[in-house]
Amino acid sequence: MAIDFKHDILAPVAADFTAMDKFINEGISSKVALVMSVSKHVVEAGGKRMRPIMCLLAAQACGETDLARTQRLAAVIEMLHTATLVHDDVVDDSNLRRGKPTANATWNNQTAVLVGDFLIARSFDLLVDLNDMALLKEFSTGTCEIAEGEVLQLQAQHQPETSEETYLNIIYGKTSRLFQLATEGAAMLAGTPEYRDGLKRYAGHFGNAFQIIDDILDYTSDAEVLGKNIGDDLMEGKPTLPLIAALKNTTGATHDVIYKSIATGGLNDLEEVISIVQNSGALDYCRRRAHEETQSAIDGLNVLPESPAKKALYNLAMMALNRIQ
Amino acid sequence: MAIDFKHDILAPVAADFTAMDKFINEGISSKVALVMSVSKHVVEAGGKRMRPIMCLLAAQACGETDLARTQRLAAVIEMLHTATLVHDDVVDDSNLRRGKPTANATWNNQTAVLVGDFLIARSFDLLVDLNDMALLKEFSTGTCEIAEGEVLQLQAQHQPETSEETYLNIIYGKTSRLFQLATEGAAMLAGTPEYRDGLKRYAGHFGNAFQIIDDILDYTSDAEVLGKNIGDDLMEGKPTLPLIAALKNTTGATHDVIYKSIATGGLNDLEEVISIVQNSGALDYCRRRAHEETQSAIDGLNVLPESPAKKALYNLAMMALNRIQ
Repeated sequence: MAIDFKHDILAPVAADFTAMDKFINEGISSKVALVMSVSKHVVEAGGKRMRPIMCLLAAQACGETDLARTQRLAAVIEMLHTATLVHDDVVDDSNLRRGKPTANATWNNQTAVLVGDFLIARSFDLLVDLNDMALLKEFSTGTCEIAEGEVLQLQAQHQPETSEETYLNIIYGKTSRLFQLATEGAAMLAGTPEYRDGLKRYAGHFGNAFQIIDDILDYTSDAEVLGKNIGDDLMEGKPTLPLIAALKNTTGATHDVIYKSIATGGLNDLEEVISIVQNSGALDYCRRRAHEETQSAIDGLNVLPESPAKKALYNLAMMALNRIQ
Repeated sequence: MAIDFKHDILAPVAADFTAMDKFINEGISSKVALVMSVSKHVVEAGGKRMRPIMCLLAAQACGETDLARTQRLAAVIEMLHTATLVHDDVVDDSNLRRGKPTANATWNNQTAVLVGDFLIARSFDLLVDLNDMALLKEFSTGTCEIAEGEVLQLQAQHQPETSEETYLNIIYGKTSRLFQLATEGAAMLAGTPEYRDGLKRYAGHFGNAFQIIDDILDYTSDAEVLGKNIGDDLMEGKPTLPLIAALKNTTGATHDVIYKSIATGGLNDLEEVISIVQNSGALDYCRRRAHEETQSAIDGLNVLPESPAKKALYNLAMMALNRIQ
């Protein structure tokens, strides 16, 4: 079944979504002109705003009635996400994101680093205004873990011995942890702690699935359609799940090609690596893992009463999975 | 009078200072090995820990009795400071700080950006544990202003039309604001709001004086002794107060040399610029401004009852001023 983003996911929170944008625009306002233009640039280059939508849907699924508070939380989520993207683009020396020039490319690394810092600080500033100490603790600990995940990814670069467990720790930090903050945070704000664990489970496993799917797309030809370039991860010697699985499934010269590609990075052996990944059963394994993670995510939703928002969270997980069908 | 750092400034809080280091070491502990080794490297490369000492002294001057809380706040101050240094070194592409290799030089820019992010997040995490919402708001707003000041500095680079007012806004963000958080924060934690404004005044003006003095030293020969290189700011086209004052005091070809040097950066005209700065009365003006700011800082201390800690805060401001005597 084709899932329509606007109709099947966004619809229950479409109004909140517009209101949230107002909070984001307030959040990035600054008396320093350069701070504001860079922030505006990176926020507007944002994608579908999946993370704040997840937050708004989770809040609605919990029966939240104070919409302004949830909208503010969703704005914080998007700003934190944007801050990490701005710094990631510096770290990866990326010139383009979703086809648009990055902040480091449009201005320079210096500006991107400092405006990223501003966005982190401003996210906390908006969060403090929500006046919820438990929520603040969750976010301050969570953002530490996000940064640690990013550094772990850096540490694993060019390391062919990286285990699947380490890979899972990396994607937890770089993807799943913020998903959790978006949904758990909504349950905390809504005053429905009984839904917190279920939403955390949904978000954590959906984050894992989402990232595994993304990593699969780096080795399949449809990827170009979706704005990713085949081999981006390989280029940087990132030991993602398709490569880790390919190493497990191969021996001898075939195994060595993958091993060496991770160790050195670069695209010299790109075609051979893709062929090995595709023929070794590695992608099948990854697809199976993506399905398992998606199923665990959906199981997490069981605690919630039926609602259009709950259904939309389900649809969101299924839409991600459809990318590799 | 020669002021001895250990005897005249550190002494009242020497015991707290050791205890604070324990909090810093706890703060930078991480399950990710790379996070920990980089954090350890940059924290240990720290200088005299002037900011946390200021925080500990302010707390003692306010009569604070819960030493563990103040020590934790002081640790947060030092970690925030370290985070900005790590990012500054990326921004300025610096290889050395206080004679030791920077994080970006020892590892790389990527690692430095991400570990800086970790230190910011961890600072907030420790701060949240102090469980004081007003303090959190002050810090979250303050760190926004600090980032804004850094961007303003970047925006002013190569801009010879930069006004003294803009210069003051820059140094407020890059130096004075964190000084204020260190001392105002101590008064807030101590539960002595009556000392808050005085300490804010002390720290804000002392920060201004401290930075003006630092900028003077960039154009005087004693600077080499103090670990700064003459012309560092000029190299980067930074319109610091000595240059702004020199522009005001000169006309014609002399004026043009300074103007062009800011606009282009580099050290081609270094000797001529130094000579103009020294002979135009610009340094005299800067010294006068440093004295005025120091006097305002000291006036701020008037609200506090007499104590060794208050005297040490006074000594700290005087020691900074002695650098340009």
